[in-house]
Amino acid sequence: MDQTATLLVCCPDRKGLVAALAQLLYGHGANILDADQHTDPVAGQFFQRIKFDLSELRTDRTSLEAAIGEVANRFGMSWRLADGKQRARTAIFVSKYDHCLYDLLLRQRSGELTTDIPLIISNHDDLEPVAEQFGIAFHHLPITKETKRLQEDKAIELMQAADVNLVVLARYMQILTRDFLRTYPNQVINIHHSFLPAFMGSKPYHRAYERGVKLIGATAHYATADLDEGPIIEQDVVRCSHRDSVQDLVRKGRDLEKVVLARAVRWHLDDRVLVYDNKTVVFN
Amino acid sequence: MDQTATLLVCCPDRKGLVAALAQLLYGHGANILDADQHTDPVAGQFFQRIKFDLSELRTDRTSLEAAIGEVANRFGMSWRLADGKQRARTAIFVSKYDHCLYDLLLRQRSGELTTDIPLIISNHDDLEPVAEQFGIAFHHLPITKETKRLQEDKAIELMQAADVNLVVLARYMQILTRDFLRTYPNQVINIHHSFLPAFMGSKPYHRAYERGVKLIGATAHYATADLDEGPIIEQDVVRCSHRDSVQDLVRKGRDLEKVVLARAVRWHLDDRVLVYDNKTVVFN
Amino acid sequence: MDQTATLLVCCPDRKGLVAALAQLLYGHGANILDADQHTDPVAGQFFQRIKFDLSELRTDRTSLEAAIGEVANRFGMSWRLADGKQRARTAIFVSKYDHCLYDLLLRQRSGELTTDIPLIISNHDDLEPVAEQFGIAFHHLPITKETKRLQEDKAIELMQAADVNLVVLARYMQILTRDFLRTYPNQVINIHHSFLPAFMGSKPYHRAYERGVKLIGATAHYATADLDEGPIIEQDVVRCSHRDSVQDLVRKGRDLEKVVLARAVRWHLDDRVLVYDNKTVVFN
Amino acid sequence: MDQTATLLVCCPDRKGLVAALAQLLYGHGANILDADQHTDPVAGQFFQRIKFDLSELRTDRTSLEAAIGEVANRFGMSWRLADGKQRARTAIFVSKYDHCLYDLLLRQRSGELTTDIPLIISNHDDLEPVAEQFGIAFHHLPITKETKRLQEDKAIELMQAADVNLVVLARYMQILTRDFLRTYPNQVINIHHSFLPAFMGSKPYHRAYERGVKLIGATAHYATADLDEGPIIEQDVVRCSHRDSVQDLVRKGRDLEKVVLARAVRWHLDDRVLVYDNKTVVFN
Repeated sequence: MDQTATLLVCCPDRKGLVAALAQLLYGHGANILDADQHTDPVAGQFFQRIKFDLSELRTDRTSLEAAIGEVANRFGMSWRLADGKQRARTAIFVSKYDHCLYDLLLRQRSGELTTDIPLIISNHDDLEPVAEQFGIAFHHLPITKETKRLQEDKAIELMQAADVNLVVLARYMQILTRDFLRTYPNQVINIHHSFLPAFMGSKPYHRAYERGVKLIGATAHYATADLDEGPIIEQDVVRCSHRDSVQDLVRKGRDLEKVVLARAVRWHLDDRVLVYDNKTVVFN
Repeated sequence: MDQTATLLVCCPDRKGLVAALAQLLYGHGANILDADQHTDPVAGQFFQRIKFDLSELRTDRTSLEAAIGEVANRFGMSWRLADGKQRARTAIFVSKYDHCLYDLLLRQRSGELTTDIPLIISNHDDLEPVAEQFGIAFHHLPITKETKRLQEDKAIELMQAADVNLVVLARYMQILTRDFLRTYPNQVINIHHSFLPAFMGSKPYHRAYERGVKLIGATAHYATADLDEGPIIEQDVVRCSHRDSVQDLVRKGRDLEKVVLARAVRWHLDDRVLVYDNKTVVFN
Repeated sequence: MDQTATLLVCCPDRKGLVAALAQLLYGHGANILDADQHTDPVAGQFFQRIKFDLSELRTDRTSLEAAIGEVANRFGMSWRLADGKQRARTAIFVSKYDHCLYDLLLRQRSGELTTDIPLIISNHDDLEPVAEQFGIAFHHLPITKETKRLQEDKAIELMQAADVNLVVLARYMQILTRDFLRTYPNQVINIHHSFLPAFMGSKPYHRAYERGVKLIGATAHYATADLDEGPIIEQDVVRCSHRDSVQDLVRKGRDLEKVVLARAVRWHLDDRVLVYDNKTVVFN
Repeated sequence: MDQTATLLVCCPDRKGLVAALAQLLYGHGANILDADQHTDPVAGQFFQRIKFDLSELRTDRTSLEAAIGEVANRFGMSWRLADGKQRARTAIFVSKYDHCLYDLLLRQRSGELTTDIPLIISNHDDLEPVAEQFGIAFHHLPITKETKRLQEDKAIELMQAADVNLVVLARYMQILTRDFLRTYPNQVINIHHSFLPAFMGSKPYHRAYERGVKLIGATAHYATADLDEGPIIEQDVVRCSHRDSVQDLVRKGRDLEKVVLARAVRWHLDDRVLVYDNKTVVFN
């Protein structure tokens, strides 16, 4: 049984932060397994991720949380404590492309992604057989201009019923509304098929082809109300040349999309990502 | 002594192109050393680079050229024949950064870039000592809004006197005028410190920092009247993270800029680059 | 309907090779779509891949082949003509790991790999359900020291019955005998989980961990009687650090193995790979 | 003036380590700027790098060191405290290749490498002009089998007179003796032109060419008595193909060697590298 917990904190930088948290955990018998920190000198912000072992906790979980809350209060920290025992619950949104979906499902099944996946939501029914193969509920919620908000509400309802706390847009070809995204702040991960901020918006491979770039990329980011402008979690590129048709770029891009999205999802699930100023700190 | 020549052709695609050129060269006793071709099915264009050995030419150089001209005429080819004996002559434009300049000069000296470098032109005098170290003429042409055209004319004059046929902008911090660029079409190579089309224009490292990208890039391209929108010859990226300050990006970027610019210059000098539709075919 | 064919030739380098083949194809009404060539000056060998369109062939396929045979004879060429209509038939060998198998099957289904996959052979029965999912015959041929040759013969029999001409070892954990490999020369592609020649043999990730390398790799190669010493088709690496446990290397490696193997298989299927001197020429 | 210090510690893992050090520094008024740690669960070892600001130190430097010593004693730590004010002093060893030498000297001059370089030592006199250009003492110590130990002693003498504490072998083509290396444990950084452990020993580019690899690499490592088997600090690779001659590999490799060596030297100078079990922990 997983007896670890992960604490993420963010606050204005000042002296004694590291000592205060280390002392607190030590005092409670929590053994630090891994700690990583970052100070952004421009923003004057301090960030820390501490993973610790609770198996020899001298007090109980409640008093540990209370103690953290106290220190956090003193230093003006925003914080989050993630329990190793509690697996995240993920909903995957797809349209017609299956490569990212298969990739995520296989990684989840192999234990690479520590999350439950109670449901898959799609505006098309093409990928229902894939969901079935993996024994996951599939909800077909077709979207028109008129029904978008309604269907999003239905999706939210389904996700709330399933206790979902992470949404992965695995090449979902609809733009989510501001309202939807507000319901899941920093909990919606999208994969965009370009190295943002290049080729924001639609048809990035076509535009990459037309521009004659020598690299194509993929970007995983938290979706925000500003399309393709949310905090970037991970990016990667692959080389291309004049020999590559748009179809070749699409093919090469598929491999990128899968791996970039999977990395971002894994880091999110491992509580390695902190968001501030529309950027991410990724402790990896 | 170099007894090779390189033929570059570009024309509407049609049958018999490859055979016609191969037959022609064979008939004259020119031995094909290396041939590479590309057909762009979208543009309907054919491109070929043929490097051949002239040491056993049965006719002379003039009749070979005449024969090529005839075939070219028949197929509507634009073509260029580069003689291995005739080294390109390059002018380097710089401002205050020395990393690309040193890099180019050392590569030239080691034989990696087969070109003469008769002159260095700068709007500042900071790098004059570097030019001296390598025994290259240095021309200080300071630029104000009022003097820009005048100084560019002076630069052109100097370059024409020195038989320059390639201009390398090695982090030259001035925008060249449309007139200047027209004088050297597809002969001015610039290095831009981002993966274009992301972060066109000024201060790309600062903007990359602000956007929170996880990769920074560099792009070598032919300079055209549309700033940072010319045909891309080469691009590369390097990984960065939240730990990197703007200064770190600048430092990491320097290594990229050098190597990306050097590759582009080398391919240009080896007659490996063809331009069409604001894109490049790079036979490498 | 695919009306293309691909000609691969290899012979001692001499003058007139390119012209002879180009002329021949032109004369028969075969339109060259793509041609790539390479001369190895050390080995004195010439290699060429020509893809051409047969839709306006003036003669028939038989006389075209006869004509190629004649030219080949004249120049001492070894050659192979692959018909675009005739899809390769691939057998996949697996043991217990499913990542490469899934990856290949999904790529085949999406059209990325133009081959039929009539059968999967394994020394374990773990992956039978995957085969079923994709509607592919699964043959469980368990191996002991005593039964190895016998089971290999059975495998060969099954493959011959299914007209197999490519064998992909998708993390197959058995060493094939010299006899088996002789039956399929340059037709067995293996994925080894290191950047060969580093970490040949067993447990490369463990040894990479112990050595403290900062990159791990994967290598796709034609299997030969000398274990892990066959001609390399493709390699790639991914960065690692002191933070990565052996398990992390295994996880990162899985992504590499999939993509490196898939590239090699695709190039083989597209008739882009020529073998000589225990090396490959990959026209990609 | 630099008012920072960096503490590196290594010890058997146990509880309270992080708290003890954080508390100690806080108590003395040292403000932690950056901390990174690593626990190797296999070796049961704990590693930490803490960079802190001394500008508001409540006690003095001596009592801080005494306090660290006390804690270190309690936990069985080996430790090193590096003062930001005290620049490292580096000797560069070269033979005939100038690319790594130029690269290091230019990076040092631009402030990228925070070290003084009091001397360059070579077994040839070819690069004396480069040393002169940068105003650095050049010592020509030619080596024969008979004179090797003698010349090494002379080198050590020169380095001791110049207070050298880092030796960089910038493509130095001699093997140093066990005795020499013992004098500078974990202080001699070598660049090897392959991705170790592949192609240990001589002529790695030739052997890479013969093996037909699709990537070539470079490795920076601490030199030990076992040739090319010391702890690896950094590695990188670049893609190659059948088109690359040995000379092309050498050319491509030069760019790799420079950048890989420079990274390793910079990390060493920034006190980011810890050695144990013939491996490195690099806190970067």
